Amino acid sequence: MKQAPHPKTAAIVTVGDELMTGLVVDTNAAAIARFLLRRGYRIVGKSSVGDAVPAIIASVRAAMRRADIVVVTGGLGPTHDDLTKEALRRLFKCGAKFDPAVLRHVQSFFKRMGKPMPSINREYANIPTAAVAVRNRMGAAPGLFFNKRVLALPGVPHEMLYMLEHEAPKFIHRGGVTIAEKTFHTAGLGEVGLMRRMTKLDEARQLADIAFLPGYGRVDIRLLTRGATPAAARARLKKAEKLISPSILEYVWGVDDETIESAVGKLLGQQRKTLAVAESCTGGGIGEKITAIPGSSNYFLGGVISYANKVKEKMLGVSAATIKNHGAVSRECAEAMAKGARARLGADYGLAVTGVAGPGGGTKEKPVGLVFVAVAALGWVQVRRLNLAGSRATIRGRAANEALFFLRDILAARNG
Amino acid sequence: MKQAPHPKTAAIVTVGDELMTGLVVDTNAAAIARFLLRRGYRIVGKSSVGDAVPAIIASVRAAMRRADIVVVTGGLGPTHDDLTKEALRRLFKCGAKFDPAVLRHVQSFFKRMGKPMPSINREYANIPTAAVAVRNRMGAAPGLFFNKRVLALPGVPHEMLYMLEHEAPKFIHRGGVTIAEKTFHTAGLGEVGLMRRMTKLDEARQLADIAFLPGYGRVDIRLLTRGATPAAARARLKKAEKLISPSILEYVWGVDDETIESAVGKLLGQQRKTLAVAESCTGGGIGEKITAIPGSSNYFLGGVISYANKVKEKMLGVSAATIKNHGAVSRECAEAMAKGARARLGADYGLAVTGVAGPGGGTKEKPVGLVFVAVAALGWVQVRRLNLAGSRATIRGRAANEALFFLRDILAARNG
Repeated sequence: MKQAPHPKTAAIVTVGDELMTGLVVDTNAAAIARFLLRRGYRIVGKSSVGDAVPAIIASVRAAMRRADIVVVTGGLGPTHDDLTKEALRRLFKCGAKFDPAVLRHVQSFFKRMGKPMPSINREYANIPTAAVAVRNRMGAAPGLFFNKRVLALPGVPHEMLYMLEHEAPKFIHRGGVTIAEKTFHTAGLGEVGLMRRMTKLDEARQLADIAFLPGYGRVDIRLLTRGATPAAARARLKKAEKLISPSILEYVWGVDDETIESAVGKLLGQQRKTLAVAESCTGGGIGEKITAIPGSSNYFLGGVISYANKVKEKMLGVSAATIKNHGAVSRECAEAMAKGARARLGADYGLAVTGVAGPGGGTKEKPVGLVFVAVAALGWVQVRRLNLAGSRATIRGRAANEALFFLRDILAARNG
Repeated sequence: MKQAPHPKTAAIVTVGDELMTGLVVDTNAAAIARFLLRRGYRIVGKSSVGDAVPAIIASVRAAMRRADIVVVTGGLGPTHDDLTKEALRRLFKCGAKFDPAVLRHVQSFFKRMGKPMPSINREYANIPTAAVAVRNRMGAAPGLFFNKRVLALPGVPHEMLYMLEHEAPKFIHRGGVTIAEKTFHTAGLGEVGLMRRMTKLDEARQLADIAFLPGYGRVDIRLLTRGATPAAARARLKKAEKLISPSILEYVWGVDDETIESAVGKLLGQQRKTLAVAESCTGGGIGEKITAIPGSSNYFLGGVISYANKVKEKMLGVSAATIKNHGAVSRECAEAMAKGARARLGADYGLAVTGVAGPGGGTKEKPVGLVFVAVAALGWVQVRRLNLAGSRATIRGRAANEALFFLRDILAARNG
C-alpha cells in the first residue's frame, strides 16, 4: 500500500497568564489540535505564553518558522492584559483601521444580551490592516486572520469552540492530506485485556495510528489513517479496522461521536420506549447526561433524585421496611427505586442507582464504592452490583456510566 | 513598600503524540505550573511536542535558554515511542550507566502489583550519566534529573502528580521567593463591570498579579503576591486585597477553594434548612452539583427531574392550566415547580429551573437561552428571568449555576 502523502503543518499558541500559573487547564489547545488534524494538518508544536507582548510575538514567530499555519487563542478581550491583537499587529508590522461593520456586530451582540455596551468595546472595531475580522456569534471579541497564515481566536472556550466549527473552516483550507478516523467505545474490559485480544494489533499499526484512551469504566480505541484522497484514507482505515474489530466486538457499545447516553437514546427511540430514572448517589448525574442529548424529550420523561430516604419512600414508593431491613444501599432498594420511577412517572423503563460514594459513610459490609444499579420494565427488574474504586467524584462518575452501560446491554439484547 | 524580589524562572515541556492530536487534554502542564508557582518560580513558557527525538531536543533546549529550570513530562515509558530519555541524553551529550538500585526498585514495583516484570523494563535502569534517577512509587518508570536543571517525569497523570508532590521538592529548590494567594469568586457582574468598580485596581496591581477568570455566569478574581518571606508575601496580599475587595464585596459569594454548591451548602447548614430541587432544562445538573459535596445529605433531600410536562403535573403538582396558558418555560411554571418541589419533598426551600436549552425548540417569544429560575419558601416565591447565550451545554451549565447563585443571594440576605 502506498505511503500516505506529507501533510501541511500547523502550530498552536495559547495566550494567558492563567495558563502560566496553572489556574486554567488548556482545553482550547486540544480542541484546536482536533480541528487541525481533521483538516489534514500535522501539528508540529503547541506552546503557551503569558500576557506580554514580547513573549506573544516570540512564540508566534517561532511557530510560524516551523508551521504553515498558526492558530492563536486568548488575549483578544478588551482589557489591558489582552495583548494578542497588539502583539500580532507589531509582528506583522501594520497599523489598524476602524471597521464599522465590526462595531455594528459588537453592538448587536450586547443588544441581544439585553445589556448596554461598555465603551471600551469600541476598541474591537480597530482591525489591524494585515488582518481580516472573523465573526464571533457567541461573544463580543472578533477573531483575526493575518496574512492567510495566523488565525487568532478569543480564549473563552465556548466562543472559541463555536468559531472553530463555524468560522475557522472559511479561513483554514484543507492541509493537503485527508484523514480518516474511527473510534470504538468499549466497556467491560481494560486496556491491557483489549490489547491482548487484538492479535493483529501490530499489523494494524502499520496502517493506522491506534490510541487507547481509558475513562470511567470504559476504554476508547481510536484509529487514524492518512491518505492523498479521502478514498485512500478510508481504504487504509477499513483494512486496519478489519484487523482489530472482530476480536473486540462484544465489548463495543458505540462508535465515533456516540456517547453512552446517545447510544441508549437511539435504542429507546428505535424501540419507542420511554425512560425514567431514580438517582441516589449520583444525585442527578444520569439525568444530566441523558438530557445533554438534543431531542431526549422524545424518550426521557424525567426522574426522582431520591437522596434522602424519606424521598425514596414518598416519591418512589420504596417501603420503609425495605430500607430498614436491607438499607438504602442494597439490591432490594435499587429494585424498588427502579420500579417506583417507572410506575410513578409512567415510563416503560425505570433506571435506578444507589451506592456509597464516600469519602465517609462506608462500613465493613457496605464499603465506599459499593453501588447497585437496577433496570425495571413491565413485569421484571434486573440488578447489577458493583465495587468501584477511587474518589467520590470517580465513584459517582463511574456509577452513572455503569448504570447507562447496564441499560444499554439490556436494550441491545432486546433489539437483536 | 519594598519591591518583591525577582523570582527564578521555570519552563514546562510536555511530550506525547496524544497531545499533538488533541486526544488528551494536557492536565499535567497545569499541575506542574501550580507546583512551580507555589515554589516561587515564575513560569515563562509551556510547550508540547510529539514523540520525536529532534523535536524534544529542540523544545527542551529552547526552554533552557529562557528559564532557570525546566520540567518535562511524558515519553519515559518502555515502548518504542518513549523517547524523552534518549533525547535528553543527546541534549546533555552523555552516555548511560546501569544502576542496580533502579532495577531493584522496578522489580519491587512489579512484585507489589503481583505481576511478572516484562524484560523490556530492565531498560529503566540505564540512567544517563548526566542525570540522577528520581523514584516513582506509583509506577515503573523512574524520573530523571539532569545537571540540576531539567527534571523529567513520567506522563501518566497519577504517577506524575505523586512525584510532583513527594519527589520533585527534593530536586527543585525554592525559587528564591515565597508566594501568597487569594481568590474571590463573584457573580452578577462581568469582568469589565468588576474592573470598573475597582478604582484602585492599578494600585493593587503594583502589589499583586491579578487575574480575572470568567466561567458560566461567574468571574473569579485571583490575587498572587511574592515576597522574600511568607510574612512579606502575606503582607503584600493583605494590602492588595484591601484595595480591591471593598468595591466588589456585594458580588463575592466565596473565596479560595469554595464552590457555589459548597457556599450554598454552608448557608443551608448554618440556617438548618433543607432544600429540594425541580429541574427541567438542566435535567439533574443542579442536584448533581449539590451532591458532589460530601455531607450534602445534611441539607439536600433530593428533587424531581421534570423533563416531560406530565411529570411536572404528576410529580410536582404544576397545574395543566399553568402549562397550557403560560407554557412550560414561564415565570408561572417555574414558580409552581419550586413550590411543588418544596411541598412534595417536605423541604424548607424549593429551587426550580425551566428553560429552552436549544438548539431547537426556540420561538420568537421564547428563544433559545430563555431560562427562569425560582426559589420557594414558606409563604413566598421569587423568580429570576435570564437570557443566556451559547450552545446547549453552555446554556445548561449556566442555568444550573445561575439557579445556585440566585438561591445563594437569597440565603445570604437572610443570614446577614
